Amino acid sequence: MVGMRARLVALAAALLAAATCAGAGVTSEYRRKAEATVDMPLNADVFRVPPGYNAPQQVHITVGDQTGTAMTVSWVTANELGSSTVMYGRSPDKLEHTADGSHTRYEYFNYTSGFIHHCTLTNLQHGSKYYYAMGFGHTVRTFFFTTPPKPGPDVPFKFGLIGDLGQTFDSNSTLAHYEENGGDAVLFVGDLSYADNYPLHDNKRWDSWARFVERSVAYQPWIWTTGNHELDFAPELGETVPFKPFTHRYPTPFRAAASTEPFWYSVKIASAHVVVLASYSAYGKYTPQWTWLQDELTTRVDRKVTPWLIVLMHSPWYNSNNYHYMEGETMRVQFEQWLVDAKVDMVLAGHVHSYERSHRFSNVDYDIVNGKATPTPNMHAPIYLTIGDGGNIEGIANNFSSPQPPYSAFREASFGHATLEIKNRTHAHYAWHRNHDGAKAVADAVWLTNRYWMPTADDA
Amino acid sequence: MVGMRARLVALAAALLAAATCAGAGVTSEYRRKAEATVDMPLNADVFRVPPGYNAPQQVHITVGDQTGTAMTVSWVTANELGSSTVMYGRSPDKLEHTADGSHTRYEYFNYTSGFIHHCTLTNLQHGSKYYYAMGFGHTVRTFFFTTPPKPGPDVPFKFGLIGDLGQTFDSNSTLAHYEENGGDAVLFVGDLSYADNYPLHDNKRWDSWARFVERSVAYQPWIWTTGNHELDFAPELGETVPFKPFTHRYPTPFRAAASTEPFWYSVKIASAHVVVLASYSAYGKYTPQWTWLQDELTTRVDRKVTPWLIVLMHSPWYNSNNYHYMEGETMRVQFEQWLVDAKVDMVLAGHVHSYERSHRFSNVDYDIVNGKATPTPNMHAPIYLTIGDGGNIEGIANNFSSPQPPYSAFREASFGHATLEIKNRTHAHYAWHRNHDGAKAVADAVWLTNRYWMPTADDA
Repeated sequence: MVGMRARLVALAAALLAAATCAGAGVTSEYRRKAEATVDMPLNADVFRVPPGYNAPQQVHITVGDQTGTAMTVSWVTANELGSSTVMYGRSPDKLEHTADGSHTRYEYFNYTSGFIHHCTLTNLQHGSKYYYAMGFGHTVRTFFFTTPPKPGPDVPFKFGLIGDLGQTFDSNSTLAHYEENGGDAVLFVGDLSYADNYPLHDNKRWDSWARFVERSVAYQPWIWTTGNHELDFAPELGETVPFKPFTHRYPTPFRAAASTEPFWYSVKIASAHVVVLASYSAYGKYTPQWTWLQDELTTRVDRKVTPWLIVLMHSPWYNSNNYHYMEGETMRVQFEQWLVDAKVDMVLAGHVHSYERSHRFSNVDYDIVNGKATPTPNMHAPIYLTIGDGGNIEGIANNFSSPQPPYSAFREASFGHATLEIKNRTHAHYAWHRNHDGAKAVADAVWLTNRYWMPTADDA
Repeated sequence: MVGMRARLVALAAALLAAATCAGAGVTSEYRRKAEATVDMPLNADVFRVPPGYNAPQQVHITVGDQTGTAMTVSWVTANELGSSTVMYGRSPDKLEHTADGSHTRYEYFNYTSGFIHHCTLTNLQHGSKYYYAMGFGHTVRTFFFTTPPKPGPDVPFKFGLIGDLGQTFDSNSTLAHYEENGGDAVLFVGDLSYADNYPLHDNKRWDSWARFVERSVAYQPWIWTTGNHELDFAPELGETVPFKPFTHRYPTPFRAAASTEPFWYSVKIASAHVVVLASYSAYGKYTPQWTWLQDELTTRVDRKVTPWLIVLMHSPWYNSNNYHYMEGETMRVQFEQWLVDAKVDMVLAGHVHSYERSHRFSNVDYDIVNGKATPTPNMHAPIYLTIGDGGNIEGIANNFSSPQPPYSAFREASFGHATLEIKNRTHAHYAWHRNHDGAKAVADAVWLTNRYWMPTADDA
């Protein structure tokens, strides 16, 4: 295996060198060279276990209520149980508050997890920096985060938009580029570790992934969406409970959002109402997700408070890559009319390992007998963004359909991430940052106008 | 309430009298008169608690493995726990075998169930009559069933096809007419008791329904499909686990079918391979149901052994009633191509409270940009039968779309049930039996030819 790893690393280096020959803007050339992805070796720095006996590792945070006056901190202790307590405060010298969490473990085939701790810090002030520490009794580690500002119609905020990340050299570039861009929180559209791609769904890869991304997610909340790689459904291994590793490791604030399961929920951050949908849970009429979304869109969204309505899912509805083509079609059939009626600003998805942005289109007139099944321009419709280009081991998806369909505004088979900078109730700047060799490059950008406050502006 | 009941019963009688004026074949007149449905009063004979202390009630059976060499017996004891043992044998005088079952209970808001017993009798001979008894220690009741014949290509068998039954006077007519027709087993396409339509999802209506249908289902296996009324999802009552009453009450042989949840599975009875799908569970690509169905259709169906491939679901894919129109569309989009590829003979659904039969049509060419979204004739496609006309409290669905679409072969807004008589590997007789006032009347019938053995025969 070591030999194989060495060869793969060498291959990656060669590919990167080859890709360097392509100049900026030579998209097709760049695309062809970037197909291969190679995992970072497990002894890479990014996967390092923090020093100290039973030191907390894999630290990550997500909002613990709807608006970020609570924050849920999660981490793993590997040697023994360890304390589930977090101390926190406004100064690193004075962690005056204490929160007691709980822990869980799980087994997956031949794997037994470490002690997974979850602790929610409550009664936080909006828009404030907090320091927090855990690991008491063994090795204490201290981190910090800034809570999101209080929701309101004109509250600037910068989201990172990342999907399908994995743990390859490309994943590392994506994360590094996002860090350089300096967002306040990440909207993650699913497919985290790709542990299920390893033999026996090697759950150690869940651990290594969480150590890899700690450098960002310990310091700012990431909002989680479930992708197909979170299913970890493996009846051949006796593992028949979908989402088992994910649900043990990644809590979501679903109860605060009146949801009944962790896979669909919402948060309200600054000027954004973010709805997380579950591509791999039931969404047929009458099901819990369907019921919840109906209530959410009709009674809990208030565009006067949070003008920007953003929907996250894993499997895209509008995407013209032959890879995973039309896999989101069933959910589109179920929910598209609702999203158009609600004047959703943008829909973020992953799953397809390339980048694509749509124009504002909809396809909601079909009634089986009228033949009206072609997407048509609709200024009330969201734009659809496919950002499944985080850089995971499965490689790039460079097989776009031809010709480019009318709904598709921009598409490119490169790895990268996007950012959304909300400026006020009417305007937001969206940009896609390609991983251009060692650097990052804005390859697609657009000023978005809010669908509630400027419903007819032709922005995209 | 008694006064209300009396008035409703009188109303029902008046409606029945009015309906009698319509002659056979005067479909539209009959349809208009039959809209109202009225629950049978709880003190009606059909709901009677069997006499004797802690007597087993609500006795029902379903196959306990894939082919019926096992049978699962379920019943409720209401006074106290009681024994979970079943004794059984080939003669009522000699119940020489003993099987020990188990019991469960559940709470639902302000309701606590009786003791729900499940006991699987194994090592049965195919095509054989067995007597069975339970209630030992208190009040013993004895029943009998005949196991299905061994699966084979030319094994005659008669299925009853019932959906959306409920517990009204019309429900009782439907069940009585089915009993007159004398089938060997029932394929039930979902929506059993409609308990969720009563205040606080009154689960006593699950009990009364099970007492009502005992006269049939204690003597022959019914194959269960989940409908939307099995969800019992009521977060406003704190009830957030879908299918809670159903799963406690109605076991299915899903493990024997290599399934991981009780809502999708298959059985092989005589010359039929019956696939049960779950309209209200997840079915997106990669989900457990999707994975299971793919394996089922590609590796476990053997038309040489079981020529008739029948699929059950609750929400129909082809149906031209404006009531619940297109609710099955998302599952159609996901699975129709597979069913066409597998040359499924027929798809049975309920949900819409009327009767409809389709021609052999499919709609599988759509790729978003080609506009090909109109159903077209296809001799490899199943016929689609909507038999949600069991007679439940929600009433008849008499608002068909106009004009009748080309895929629709026959439709009528009357209550009733259907039968499928498999004769051999090539032919089966299908008939829909309308509840025609006090009597039953065959209003639609067709000879079906098997899609595997006679794939091009234009039968429907």
